[in-house]
Amino acid sequence: MASSTGGSSSGGNANERKLQRDTPTDSYARLYLSPVPSVEGDEDDDVDDDHQSQAALSIVEQEDSGEEVELTSVTPGTATTVTIVDTNHGVSNPSKTQYDEEVTDVTYVVRKHYENFETIDWLKDLMRNRIRHRNLRAQRRASWRQRFIFWFDAWSGWICVLLVGLSAGLVAGFVDIGAKWMSHWRTGVCTPAFWLNREQCCWGSREVEFDHVHSELCEHWNTWSQIFDMNELSVSAWFFRYFMFIFWSVIYSGFIVCLVVGSAPYASGSGIPEIKTILSGFIMYGYLGKWTFFIKSIGMIFATSAGLIVGKEGPFVHISCCCGNLFSKLFPKYGNNEARKREILSAAAATGVSVAFGAPIGGILFGLEEISYYFPYKTLWRTFFCCMIGALVVRTINPYGNGHEIQFPVEYNAPWATFEVVPFIGIGILGGLWGTLFIKTNIRWLKYKKTNRIGQYPRAEVVILTLITAFICYPNLYLRLTMPELIRRLVGQCRVDDHMDLCDYEREKPIGTATAKLYAALAGPGIHRAIWQLFWALIVQITLVIFTIGTKIPSGLIVPSISIGAIAGRLIGIITEQIAYQNQHLAILRHECGVSNEHCVTPGLYAVVGACAFLGGVSRMTVSLVVIMSEVTGGLSYIVPLMVTALAAKWVGDAFGEGIYEENVKLSGYPYLENRESFRFTLKAGEAVRASRSDETVPLACIIQDGMTIAQIDRLLHRHPHSIYPVIISEDFPCIVGQVQRRDLLAVLKSRKTQSAQIQSKPLLNRKCSVVSMSNLLNKSGQPSSLGMRRASIALQASKILKLHKLVDRAPIIVTDQTPMEAVVDMFRKLGCRQIFVTKNGRLHGILTRKDIIRLMEEANISKKLEHSN
Amino acid sequence: MASSTGGSSSGGNANERKLQRDTPTDSYARLYLSPVPSVEGDEDDDVDDDHQSQAALSIVEQEDSGEEVELTSVTPGTATTVTIVDTNHGVSNPSKTQYDEEVTDVTYVVRKHYENFETIDWLKDLMRNRIRHRNLRAQRRASWRQRFIFWFDAWSGWICVLLVGLSAGLVAGFVDIGAKWMSHWRTGVCTPAFWLNREQCCWGSREVEFDHVHSELCEHWNTWSQIFDMNELSVSAWFFRYFMFIFWSVIYSGFIVCLVVGSAPYASGSGIPEIKTILSGFIMYGYLGKWTFFIKSIGMIFATSAGLIVGKEGPFVHISCCCGNLFSKLFPKYGNNEARKREILSAAAATGVSVAFGAPIGGILFGLEEISYYFPYKTLWRTFFCCMIGALVVRTINPYGNGHEIQFPVEYNAPWATFEVVPFIGIGILGGLWGTLFIKTNIRWLKYKKTNRIGQYPRAEVVILTLITAFICYPNLYLRLTMPELIRRLVGQCRVDDHMDLCDYEREKPIGTATAKLYAALAGPGIHRAIWQLFWALIVQITLVIFTIGTKIPSGLIVPSISIGAIAGRLIGIITEQIAYQNQHLAILRHECGVSNEHCVTPGLYAVVGACAFLGGVSRMTVSLVVIMSEVTGGLSYIVPLMVTALAAKWVGDAFGEGIYEENVKLSGYPYLENRESFRFTLKAGEAVRASRSDETVPLACIIQDGMTIAQIDRLLHRHPHSIYPVIISEDFPCIVGQVQRRDLLAVLKSRKTQSAQIQSKPLLNRKCSVVSMSNLLNKSGQPSSLGMRRASIALQASKILKLHKLVDRAPIIVTDQTPMEAVVDMFRKLGCRQIFVTKNGRLHGILTRKDIIRLMEEANISKKLEHSN
Repeated sequence: MASSTGGSSSGGNANERKLQRDTPTDSYARLYLSPVPSVEGDEDDDVDDDHQSQAALSIVEQEDSGEEVELTSVTPGTATTVTIVDTNHGVSNPSKTQYDEEVTDVTYVVRKHYENFETIDWLKDLMRNRIRHRNLRAQRRASWRQRFIFWFDAWSGWICVLLVGLSAGLVAGFVDIGAKWMSHWRTGVCTPAFWLNREQCCWGSREVEFDHVHSELCEHWNTWSQIFDMNELSVSAWFFRYFMFIFWSVIYSGFIVCLVVGSAPYASGSGIPEIKTILSGFIMYGYLGKWTFFIKSIGMIFATSAGLIVGKEGPFVHISCCCGNLFSKLFPKYGNNEARKREILSAAAATGVSVAFGAPIGGILFGLEEISYYFPYKTLWRTFFCCMIGALVVRTINPYGNGHEIQFPVEYNAPWATFEVVPFIGIGILGGLWGTLFIKTNIRWLKYKKTNRIGQYPRAEVVILTLITAFICYPNLYLRLTMPELIRRLVGQCRVDDHMDLCDYEREKPIGTATAKLYAALAGPGIHRAIWQLFWALIVQITLVIFTIGTKIPSGLIVPSISIGAIAGRLIGIITEQIAYQNQHLAILRHECGVSNEHCVTPGLYAVVGACAFLGGVSRMTVSLVVIMSEVTGGLSYIVPLMVTALAAKWVGDAFGEGIYEENVKLSGYPYLENRESFRFTLKAGEAVRASRSDETVPLACIIQDGMTIAQIDRLLHRHPHSIYPVIISEDFPCIVGQVQRRDLLAVLKSRKTQSAQIQSKPLLNRKCSVVSMSNLLNKSGQPSSLGMRRASIALQASKILKLHKLVDRAPIIVTDQTPMEAVVDMFRKLGCRQIFVTKNGRLHGILTRKDIIRLMEEANISKKLEHSN
Repeated sequence: MASSTGGSSSGGNANERKLQRDTPTDSYARLYLSPVPSVEGDEDDDVDDDHQSQAALSIVEQEDSGEEVELTSVTPGTATTVTIVDTNHGVSNPSKTQYDEEVTDVTYVVRKHYENFETIDWLKDLMRNRIRHRNLRAQRRASWRQRFIFWFDAWSGWICVLLVGLSAGLVAGFVDIGAKWMSHWRTGVCTPAFWLNREQCCWGSREVEFDHVHSELCEHWNTWSQIFDMNELSVSAWFFRYFMFIFWSVIYSGFIVCLVVGSAPYASGSGIPEIKTILSGFIMYGYLGKWTFFIKSIGMIFATSAGLIVGKEGPFVHISCCCGNLFSKLFPKYGNNEARKREILSAAAATGVSVAFGAPIGGILFGLEEISYYFPYKTLWRTFFCCMIGALVVRTINPYGNGHEIQFPVEYNAPWATFEVVPFIGIGILGGLWGTLFIKTNIRWLKYKKTNRIGQYPRAEVVILTLITAFICYPNLYLRLTMPELIRRLVGQCRVDDHMDLCDYEREKPIGTATAKLYAALAGPGIHRAIWQLFWALIVQITLVIFTIGTKIPSGLIVPSISIGAIAGRLIGIITEQIAYQNQHLAILRHECGVSNEHCVTPGLYAVVGACAFLGGVSRMTVSLVVIMSEVTGGLSYIVPLMVTALAAKWVGDAFGEGIYEENVKLSGYPYLENRESFRFTLKAGEAVRASRSDETVPLACIIQDGMTIAQIDRLLHRHPHSIYPVIISEDFPCIVGQVQRRDLLAVLKSRKTQSAQIQSKPLLNRKCSVVSMSNLLNKSGQPSSLGMRRASIALQASKILKLHKLVDRAPIIVTDQTPMEAVVDMFRKLGCRQIFVTKNGRLHGILTRKDIIRLMEEANISKKLEHSN
């Protein structure tokens, strides 16, 4: 099914069967480009060609006579078999080719799998996929089976994203329900049905009361002190509950950190920086594996239930991508092609956000803006579908229990006054500052841990952190709530029947329905108490989150940021509200708030805005942030305030450095080619080649299209361990005709050696054995010379030439040495190639790889910083 | 300020001052690549070089002796002045260059402006901008003025989008208010204050009644029959009102069609296909000019007020882009650089949607998904800001008069039942079918008009169409409303105090507040009447819109589509509601709708879904459509239904053809390189070159780097009127070293000729006059040969060589002939280049231009269709 040997499909171009030039002198083995030998001209007109091929013939024959015994697989005059061993699979695909056969694209077949920690070649992978598709298309009328395969192939993308959406939605629902239940388990048990969480437990009760933070209290729900028959109001009972809370927290976190450290180290963290890098074309085997998937899924339940200041929304992106990776293996179109697989992974990453927040559009935009690298239109379209399926599944499971897909519902619709733009911008600036503070401190802490002994005890670190967190959090009612519960209370508007501290205004309670309107009023004692508790909660969360993010547990940053932002926003909201209330006479307020002063300042809206600002400060998202916040709260009327805040947060944050994901990518040293920063340097490609070559004296390793011996190539591969070698016409005419992968060459050499060894059981390494002809290429003028061709053909048939033309990719990316580096970087970014060859007047001048570019950009950044500091 | 002669900035590369090779034989003038002369080798080692340069020297000297008089500007041994005339501006920038000077990037200076109907070269334009920026950066410490210029340049993007946002918002508010007032003017006048529309007029009245379609009736508002003191209830009064309605409609449309046809033909249509093409890099001078802006702005008021089935939301995109174009002229960074200007235009296009609908996020996505071609991250970020400013301005103007930014508010929040997915998908399929029907019919009608006499009378066409429209629409109360009013009624939910036909259910009116809940009930006579009237309205609108879109008035398609979709959706909604009501016993309905049957089926939601489906069927938007619909209605709970519907509509629509914008681009024949379709053909670049060259016998026009005479170049330019010529090393070594623009060469030749003519007053055309040296290039091996260099230097100084190296762009895009065409197309799309040179073993093989690619893709599409039909 995955067979891609498209022999029939490459258009019939008769010009491609051309003269073979053979100049096998040993001195040609490596090419010293820098001081070009000026003695030999690079004539290849008819006369010279004839002369040379005669010479070649004699040399070949001479060599043949000595080496014939060792190369029995090459039978003169008939087909030459090139056996290629795909080391990743250990299977060999022998493909027979006639000398007279068309040149086919099977180059790409060889290079199906990558090594770990390698970057993929987008261009070649996509090309390989197109050839595959063409072959399937060409064969589809052959039989019903072929027809089905073609059909299945065409629809496999949709089927795959459907499966990803379904599974991501299911996992999200499961994790949401599980985390809530386990969180509540720390404080008590639902005695009639232990599998219910407190909220569900109290639904069945007749009499439900609420405490100061609007948590349910009902007869079915028994705290641990009640279960152990203690006096509920005694100090010892309180301490017992405190102890049980800490006890369960430590159990949860201890369990999961052992699991992660022991079995799936990749399951730690949020995974977003790694997903970003993987989507940009990096290979990390196991990062999206089933074991990581499983442990991260249950890890999220345990980590959030342990009361640590971590979220489960970021890790959902990772989990979704695991689903994407696992399902893509069912479809050869995606499973066997790393570039196409990125399409599924992009859709999966977006679906992660979609199911985590119930925000399908926000998910798509998050994928588009923050995570994805390669996002063609078709992917957008499939992502749309995938996110929709995920959202539908989550809606059906209904984990938030409110019949809507909205997680933190904002039930008010009060218009905002224009003067409020000022506090909104203020919150935005705070958010940007918080983001900078967090990023700098967290990264510094992570770097410190790397060198310090703390880093060697990840299990102890997490357990101690949980102990501290639980110890601090229990006494504060707001911190005792799970973060989503806290956020929901903060963004909500006070209603008449609310008894919580946050709604304790000094006003006459109007008698009426729950939806009756509440006018602004002076803050009561409850509000004052709430303000101090929230302020303490803010400090605690800010401090703890810095140490928690980066430990060896699945830990997202999105919900902690929202929580901190919502606390800060609500505090500012209450303050603004009180200021507005006490200064109603001011002209600006009178005009905006009207006489009734109803809904003049809505503190809940400030919590939403604060959440947006603080999340924006950390992640530096823009459009996706606003959409996610709108979708999460359902407050579509507040898009403009959210935009203002996001803009302020990003501006302030960007002034001090990059976002958390970029910083994490840098910290981990992944080869991520940033596609946002512009590269501002005056280099030209030719100069960059020189700058990137550390040692000028080492010559460029090239392969000559005809006339190298196997021994020469072997030596070249050992001396210059590059991953790719340019193929040039000849040493004195170093014009690129293609490129060849190291591992392909190694594979061929290995199989050659094995074959020889089987027959002769002699080592082959240091002996000349055969002429390696790379070509089937034209002579230099592009025209076959009939005489030369005939002679070369005879020479070829007489010799034991190993034709490796199938290994040669004859569409390398070439730029001139005068091309500005900005254009070269653009080509790397937009075309996704791994290396670009630089030519100077048509001659090979050097190679620039993706890693060279990343290094050059880093150097440029450093010099820019130096320049700034001067 | 816009000076870009970056002499100082191009990195100091000592290798660039190199040997000049001069082989000025006339036979080298043009290069016949196809049968390469195989006699001459292309040796350029020292010996040959010396020999050749000696020969050159002698020839040069020989020529000098004859021609010296005519080239007085070239003084031997000193600086050579190359005068370049920028024909667009008519000013000449003489730039002095020493022979010893570095090679600079001033190539790009010449090519600042494009001809009309040309495609831009993104790569070069962006490069030019980077050089400009570097120069400003380098000079910024020189003086305070430079510092200010640098600062201004850095912020000019933000300032520009701020201005665009403000102006687009202002125009949108103005147009909204104007259109509403003029529409109402057709039915009557507000006697106390004629400048108020009916809605505003009735705000001041004490007693307001509503008719069957919820239009206001109050004592301040006087119909035309009341103004002329007729008996309001008499038949003649009705006919008089009917007449006045038609009269005003015809006046409006007649006025605007005369204005458009007479003064600004570019103001007709929606402009989105053209904006798409312009953003993809096409030049259309005047399309975004101030006259178009002005006439289109008032044209939208008149066209929508005339009651034609056209919207004003699409044209807003055009108007916003006009603002973007006009403001970008204030900033040299954007005004002088077509590629950078596209960034402003992209932001402006998004802002158009943002202000038209009050949907900032929808606008961004519309820009991203539908319109833009080149959308880097920085643009996204500025677009965000621009849309926000636009939305803020519209909000301040408050044209919808409801205190929100929402145009068609959905005030309900009822959850939807899962079984409703079935009717939603049904509506989606209908939307896709409608889209196909509309596109096919409309395009056929437009094509017919082109060949037919009707197309010759655009004014009469519009006036007759208005007559018919007004004649049909007045009797139907729903059609008499403006489309936005109609949509608002259709998407709304019935409230207790509604007396309109659409809310006439047979139920006991509960006594209570307006927000009291309404249960499902049997349809009353009003509903039956409404259904028939709406059905008639649907047919009328569907028929009229096909003929109206494409006439010579500003006409958008978005609101008509929404309107038609909302009618269809509401009809289906009422039917579904009645079916659900009458089958309450069915298990599926009982579970979903509950016992109360409250909010089981919300017909208003169906109208929203219908609008989404029909708009999706026409425009084929996905994410942006869902976001726009959510933002326009404020119904964030309904994202999943909207997604389902959009998906169905797009799938069905795509099965039958492309979206309206793509079809319009094709109809107009714009060179738009579709970046969504994949190009599925087996060609390689070498074969494509052959396929694209209609006449094999005509040789490729090349310029040789050294040794052409002015006369030769002149002849070349006349014989081969290409826009660009490759510069090669020599005829027998056709290796590309750069490219040169036709107009630059022409400009230089012109100035040469003018200079000569001034001195000698002799025509120069048919005489050899000077050796044109393109170079400052190295010899072929990349190394200067000291002897050859010295000699050449002497030769150069002795001769009258015109150095044109500044005209040569030495960073052409090169691919090998073996590169698959898919990769080449990718390069065109992603890098935005205008032409790609194809080499074969390092030698120039051919040129592929953007137009070749578009043609090849079209041919491929045709053959694909043929294949499908077989």
